[in-house]
Amino acid sequence: MLTAIQVQAARDRAAAALADAGIEITPAERASIEVADLGLGDLEHIGLELIVYVNTDRVCAKELVLFPGQTCPEHWHPPFDGTPGKEETFRVRAGVVYLHVEGGDPTPHPLAKPARAERGIYTAKREIVLHPGEQFTVPPNTKHWFQSGPDGAIVSEFSTQSRDDLDLFTDPEIVRIPVYTD
Amino acid sequence: MLTAIQVQAARDRAAAALADAGIEITPAERASIEVADLGLGDLEHIGLELIVYVNTDRVCAKELVLFPGQTCPEHWHPPFDGTPGKEETFRVRAGVVYLHVEGGDPTPHPLAKPARAERGIYTAKREIVLHPGEQFTVPPNTKHWFQSGPDGAIVSEFSTQSRDDLDLFTDPEIVRIPVYTD
Repeated sequence: MLTAIQVQAARDRAAAALADAGIEITPAERASIEVADLGLGDLEHIGLELIVYVNTDRVCAKELVLFPGQTCPEHWHPPFDGTPGKEETFRVRAGVVYLHVEGGDPTPHPLAKPARAERGIYTAKREIVLHPGEQFTVPPNTKHWFQSGPDGAIVSEFSTQSRDDLDLFTDPEIVRIPVYTD
Repeated sequence: MLTAIQVQAARDRAAAALADAGIEITPAERASIEVADLGLGDLEHIGLELIVYVNTDRVCAKELVLFPGQTCPEHWHPPFDGTPGKEETFRVRAGVVYLHVEGGDPTPHPLAKPARAERGIYTAKREIVLHPGEQFTVPPNTKHWFQSGPDGAIVSEFSTQSRDDLDLFTDPEIVRIPVYTD
């Protein structure tokens, strides 16, 4: 469980990273940056910070902020309500992202070095390295995880409706909800 | 009809505007920036420049570039294939945008001054002024148009599937297709 002070510090760092990348947000967005430590209490290594720009029944767009080396751990978006599940495109705006996606040939020498890997919680082994301006679309119901490079990263996410409460994680210790929002 | 030289010049200007805003694009994206003069041959005043990042059956994301004072003329996205039509959110990244949307009370003293307005081709009279970091979601099948301020603008568009060929325009002289892409 993060303290209010830790949440505020994470928001300040995320806002500074967005400002450095020239990405404008409103004061209301800044004040409610979502800080997701996924219940692990190790935000520096595992979790992410994000702003949800829009999330309707049909479309969702977010800006994700990753601190240097921070990892969004392996998860997938299952079918729901007669849909195939969330389809999402990650477009890197700043920094470098090592995206791992289920399927395909394993990358022999991946650049990502996530925390807690010894727990076997990362099974997707195809690595796609994304630089600013590069993107990848993850199909629904497909395991994936990603880690930023040494300078952190900003990622725009374009997707169908986001239902975080339905996300499934490989690591049984992870709890997507609660998150820290105002 | 724009000449190849005019299209290239528009691409160069759009790429420069994106670079000024700190938005990274790939060389392939740069080379295929869509230049839409809508068949009017007056790109300086009417039309837009855009990059389609992704456009699947479910989700679409684009970056729009407007030259100073350039207007994307009034249009709407009708229902198709059993869907309500395209739903889109415009989020301004740089510059100012005067967005006009059908419905609501007309804005008494709008800031937008589009070209060819005397032709009666702008009927949506509620003006929403969007600065960087601000956004608005236009429902499907709703007339809208927008003009940039004196410094031009960059706008991220998050939407359901884009089917430009189905767009309907108030101005009968407009032809959405052909567009200039490689």
